[in-house]
Amino acid sequence: MGDPGGIGPEVIVKALAEPGLRRSAHFRVLGPARAMERAAELAGIEPFWWKIDHGSSLIDTTTAHDVVVLDYAGDDLLPAQANRAAGDLSFRLVDDAITAAKREPGDPLRVDGIVTGPINKQAWSMAGHGRFPGHTELLTTRFNAKRSAMFFHAPPGEGAPHGLNVILATVHLPLMEIRNILTIGKVFDAIDLGHEACRALGIARPRIAVAGLNPHAGEGGILGDEETRLIEPAIRLAQEAGMDVRGPFPGDTVFNSAVRGAYDLVVAMYHDQGLIPVKLLARDRAVNVTVGLPTVRTSPDHGTAFDIAWKNRADPGSMKSAIELAVRMALGKGHV
Amino acid sequence: MGDPGGIGPEVIVKALAEPGLRRSAHFRVLGPARAMERAAELAGIEPFWWKIDHGSSLIDTTTAHDVVVLDYAGDDLLPAQANRAAGDLSFRLVDDAITAAKREPGDPLRVDGIVTGPINKQAWSMAGHGRFPGHTELLTTRFNAKRSAMFFHAPPGEGAPHGLNVILATVHLPLMEIRNILTIGKVFDAIDLGHEACRALGIARPRIAVAGLNPHAGEGGILGDEETRLIEPAIRLAQEAGMDVRGPFPGDTVFNSAVRGAYDLVVAMYHDQGLIPVKLLARDRAVNVTVGLPTVRTSPDHGTAFDIAWKNRADPGSMKSAIELAVRMALGKGHV
Repeated sequence: MGDPGGIGPEVIVKALAEPGLRRSAHFRVLGPARAMERAAELAGIEPFWWKIDHGSSLIDTTTAHDVVVLDYAGDDLLPAQANRAAGDLSFRLVDDAITAAKREPGDPLRVDGIVTGPINKQAWSMAGHGRFPGHTELLTTRFNAKRSAMFFHAPPGEGAPHGLNVILATVHLPLMEIRNILTIGKVFDAIDLGHEACRALGIARPRIAVAGLNPHAGEGGILGDEETRLIEPAIRLAQEAGMDVRGPFPGDTVFNSAVRGAYDLVVAMYHDQGLIPVKLLARDRAVNVTVGLPTVRTSPDHGTAFDIAWKNRADPGSMKSAIELAVRMALGKGHV
Repeated sequence: MGDPGGIGPEVIVKALAEPGLRRSAHFRVLGPARAMERAAELAGIEPFWWKIDHGSSLIDTTTAHDVVVLDYAGDDLLPAQANRAAGDLSFRLVDDAITAAKREPGDPLRVDGIVTGPINKQAWSMAGHGRFPGHTELLTTRFNAKRSAMFFHAPPGEGAPHGLNVILATVHLPLMEIRNILTIGKVFDAIDLGHEACRALGIARPRIAVAGLNPHAGEGGILGDEETRLIEPAIRLAQEAGMDVRGPFPGDTVFNSAVRGAYDLVVAMYHDQGLIPVKLLARDRAVNVTVGLPTVRTSPDHGTAFDIAWKNRADPGSMKSAIELAVRMALGKGHV
């Protein structure tokens, strides 16, 4: 559910209210059932879930239901602002979801993937979980993931008839620090993890384009040497491993080629290079995927939006896409 | 005309074939008339221009004509590949256009703005003009421009109902070199020149957004200090000078806000940050403007495209936009 005071409950209720999506898998919503009920009431939606206590052994008996709410009952509904109680609860929800994902196949408590609702980083910090700036760090720590990467999916839409998939080689660091961080291995891992994610999405032989770091992809070394020194060797390694990967291409044209259908994935060298096109095409519909974990993990690409919470204004588009994608990837990995 | 062997002649003929555009100003096309004639024949367009020799004193008598071709007759049509003769001629065409733009108002040879057709940098180099990597460097040198910047205009279209205007604070340098180049003055100049360009475009009080350099615009200093050290002081200077300027905003969301109509201009910190959104929205329709010169200068945002030259396949969209914009800016500057 993410932070129960944010728009998480509303977008979950609205997304799963669609019978087609609801029936595509078995869903377990972790969070206060009261928040779900209030969101349904606001939206005029008849509750469509079965509710049990989150620790209940009744979970064995719930397989006939599409949606089960694992209730974390609290005294009150939590306010739409950063607070300790919500930070504590939203952290616990993710942690419990991870525990469920780590169970053995066949265990009735096991889940095949996690869709995370938006959390508030400040609330996590107030609750003493500040060492994890967000979901991704908590997930990679708990799963002991040696390598992981942020992958973004912009669904097809206006300006992007084929959608756009992007994976980032580097993420949250000062732009000028890239020179101390980018290595052949980092670029190769991004290509390799992106390849794996595309295959999980059902693309048998993903066509991958790699962006350069510098303007005009370095223009043959005149505008920087990272292309020849780091990016080209990583591309060759990936080609030798049998992947269909090309580049480095100039950052300012490669995304246009991809949205026109020439590539299934663009490997971006840094945060803004990859996220400018994703958010320009699909600001409220993009999905964030953590790849490199032993489970599936997707997330809508928006925050708690406290300012519009509990006003029935939240757009469930990104949550819907995040759920759809998680189901597709779990199927693609043979989990479901 | 740019390189006479490229698609320059074809896009000029097709663009000016539209009576509305043709009548919006007096046009002088510098280049071989034979190339214009061949392009018109290929496209099935009746020649609509008056032709005189480029050195002719008859120019005084041509004001009744919308379009005059100043003929640079050569022995033969030039091939669609980089060659010395084309490099020599295309350099001379720009140089002669600059000379015309430098003439005093009232001089019949004076022009109020220059639209440059695409040239081939290798051909310029073969002709001994390699010290100018392109138009912009030649223009700033010949005009002795103390400061100039690249401004891009993506006309309204799919995904960008309001279009998008972008100016770059830094241009052709290795990405990691930004740390040695970006200063408060560079950011301020980009804001100031962008403000001037928007006003020339007829926007009385441009609303300007400045992008950060780092992911999340530095997230309060955690992800880099250029925002607090360089960008914020430049914004304050511009605000004190009376400009409506805000930021720094995260690079991955500011362009989306602008295309939705919240801003008239985005100041980007580097090449790909500004050009990824421009080319994603308008790859073949964007216009490149050099601001900071005493004349107007626009250019289509494509190259010579030798591979499709003389096949009647060139799309005149970008050239049309470049001509329209030059006329608008010359009017806005009170030149026309």
